[in-house]
Amino acid sequence: MSEGTREQVLEVAARGRTAAADLAPLPRGVKDAALFAVADALTARSAEILEANAVDLERAKESGTPSYMLDRLALSAERLEQIAAAVREVAALPDPVGEVVRGYTLPNGLELRQLRVPLGVVGIIYEGRPNVTVDAAALTLKSGNAVLLRGSSSAYDSNVALVNVMRDALEGTDVPADAIQLVPGRDRESVKHLMRARGLVDVLIPRGGASLINSVVEESTVPVIETGVGNCTVYVDGDADVEMALGILINSKTQRPSVCNTAETFLVHKDIADVFVPRALEALKDKGVTVHGDERVRSYSAEVVEATEEDYRTEYLSLDIAAAVVDSLDEAVKHIRAYSSGHTEAIVTNSQQAAKRFVSLVDSAAVAVNASTRFTDGGEFGFGAEIGISTQKLHSRGPMGLPELTSTKYVFTGEGHLRGV
Amino acid sequence: MSEGTREQVLEVAARGRTAAADLAPLPRGVKDAALFAVADALTARSAEILEANAVDLERAKESGTPSYMLDRLALSAERLEQIAAAVREVAALPDPVGEVVRGYTLPNGLELRQLRVPLGVVGIIYEGRPNVTVDAAALTLKSGNAVLLRGSSSAYDSNVALVNVMRDALEGTDVPADAIQLVPGRDRESVKHLMRARGLVDVLIPRGGASLINSVVEESTVPVIETGVGNCTVYVDGDADVEMALGILINSKTQRPSVCNTAETFLVHKDIADVFVPRALEALKDKGVTVHGDERVRSYSAEVVEATEEDYRTEYLSLDIAAAVVDSLDEAVKHIRAYSSGHTEAIVTNSQQAAKRFVSLVDSAAVAVNASTRFTDGGEFGFGAEIGISTQKLHSRGPMGLPELTSTKYVFTGEGHLRGV
Repeated sequence: MSEGTREQVLEVAARGRTAAADLAPLPRGVKDAALFAVADALTARSAEILEANAVDLERAKESGTPSYMLDRLALSAERLEQIAAAVREVAALPDPVGEVVRGYTLPNGLELRQLRVPLGVVGIIYEGRPNVTVDAAALTLKSGNAVLLRGSSSAYDSNVALVNVMRDALEGTDVPADAIQLVPGRDRESVKHLMRARGLVDVLIPRGGASLINSVVEESTVPVIETGVGNCTVYVDGDADVEMALGILINSKTQRPSVCNTAETFLVHKDIADVFVPRALEALKDKGVTVHGDERVRSYSAEVVEATEEDYRTEYLSLDIAAAVVDSLDEAVKHIRAYSSGHTEAIVTNSQQAAKRFVSLVDSAAVAVNASTRFTDGGEFGFGAEIGISTQKLHSRGPMGLPELTSTKYVFTGEGHLRGV
Repeated sequence: MSEGTREQVLEVAARGRTAAADLAPLPRGVKDAALFAVADALTARSAEILEANAVDLERAKESGTPSYMLDRLALSAERLEQIAAAVREVAALPDPVGEVVRGYTLPNGLELRQLRVPLGVVGIIYEGRPNVTVDAAALTLKSGNAVLLRGSSSAYDSNVALVNVMRDALEGTDVPADAIQLVPGRDRESVKHLMRARGLVDVLIPRGGASLINSVVEESTVPVIETGVGNCTVYVDGDADVEMALGILINSKTQRPSVCNTAETFLVHKDIADVFVPRALEALKDKGVTVHGDERVRSYSAEVVEATEEDYRTEYLSLDIAAAVVDSLDEAVKHIRAYSSGHTEAIVTNSQQAAKRFVSLVDSAAVAVNASTRFTDGGEFGFGAEIGISTQKLHSRGPMGLPELTSTKYVFTGEGHLRGV
């Protein structure tokens, strides 16, 4: 696992392909037993994992990595316990494979069934946190897929240790060790080989910032599921309850500003602006949020920074928010269509008509009515686990749980049925 | 509609985007009325359509196009009646948009609904037959999508006439005319602009031969759904009923050899080869089929041509079939994994165990048990219509009907719900 040449990456992908074929027909019990073995090994062998993590941390410190990024990278015995517990939670979820999605008997007597089957070989390209290494491996294994993991080079030693421990744990089970593999190499070149491994890799899921995702989308010939870029909006309608709107705005912006379902813009209907905007500016100021507003928002306070076109497009992931006053719900929708990333948009309104129109016109993965944008999340939606939040329209849109890591297969059964015309 | 420069193609795509936004919330009644208007116009204005078609036919004859391709290109008053009738059939199908795919109330009282919504702007890149122009337009309109049609240059005049007639018909309805547009240009360059129109086009569906599909997959940054390449297999198990196996083999190969769900290979278990292969060779010969066999198949007849590695990979679409004798069901599966395009594979067997194992191990869009491969078809499956047969695993696999032309949107409704952790 050193270089990451084309041959090495393709060899790993081919081994994944073989493992995927062996994994696909395995019943739930075999996969769950393997997940429990993985969870046990992660805590039993925590010493060597933490040792490898220390190497990553040391390298990161030497290169002047900021402390919040060091925190993301750092493992501890306690964090490993939590990671192992998450693996056991995945084991407890229902197995999507084999579910009959649709089934009926055709007029000619043929019995048709559409069954969930694994996707096959899933490549995950991600940044930062080494817990994603285990998380992604558990979710793909549970859904019957072989995974190719390509984490950040900053977490390389941690990832090597985690994958070694997981693979060793599989050796004692009926799941092939090659169900979990690390893509060799630390440089960009090895990622490129992965992105061109069409026919060996069934899907790539990039998890991370916009630039990572865009580069994978642009360069990959393997099908890609885009995840996680969120430029979310809260629209306060003329008919809104002001207290409710304040609560939703503050929660959407400040409850956890660094994640994709946080609000990055708020829009206010002109009929409620005089009442709402001053109170919103005060509440946001109390939370330390800088507001970037249009002229009408700035007319309420000198502390509002002038918003540029670029502000409305920006996923701040910080204590900043863009703002504008709009003349109508339709103007709010127009703004959202122009600037939103299609993740989550919220409306606060007491009007049934306004809610219906907003839901119908906004073309995003999730639309919230009188609720915080922060609820768009696999855990909150009751999926039990999440591999990411898709902001594309094909295959899956919104939070992706285990069923979203599957494809389907049609099976039709006859008694010598022949086609006439 | 002459040149097909980048600007022109992007302008058409942008108009499609606007039309898609207007189309998305339209109720079924409006869309159906538009489809009936389109159907009526196609027959009312048949004279000008046939005139344009005559220009295409003349040009094709001059360039020495073979007669079976001229037949595909040719329209007639009768064919236009059939095309219009197909549009009315699409109108009669249920509207997938707005269907609640999943819905429940979360423990905190938030009401969660997952609704079907249109994909948005759908680009169809296709060859030959001008009836696809109308077919694709009807299916995309019914599912609330704007379509960008890019047919073959050989059918250019026919397609211009058909699209003009359909757009004129929309003028008298509440559906925007830009719901149906032709991509300008006849050359490869204009297709390239379409394939790079990421953000304006939501999905491209290439319909045609393997080389068209591969080039779109390789070059497109817009998400692609691969359709229609079929290298299908009939496996005759050691436990098969010989008469049934003969019927299924002949039907799968000869009932309509030019389409993607026709069989291109048959594999025979060694235990039944002495009984089955001589009869199969005779029956295939009677139908004019040339068999390309391995050594064991050739031992039964001098008329069997020697099969190369390439034969097992080939989608003949002609009266040719590759053949081999295998030692076991697992060897048949191995052959299929190595050579099949993942469209449809059939097993003929009386053994419940063999059927179960074959279904579980074969990784194709459709698996037939004791039935002809020819049944893999949206019409036969009861979908009422088909935009193509997907052989990829993401989004949709197998025959694609109207629901497969949609995405979904999560809507969650609260009463000021805020997230705590």
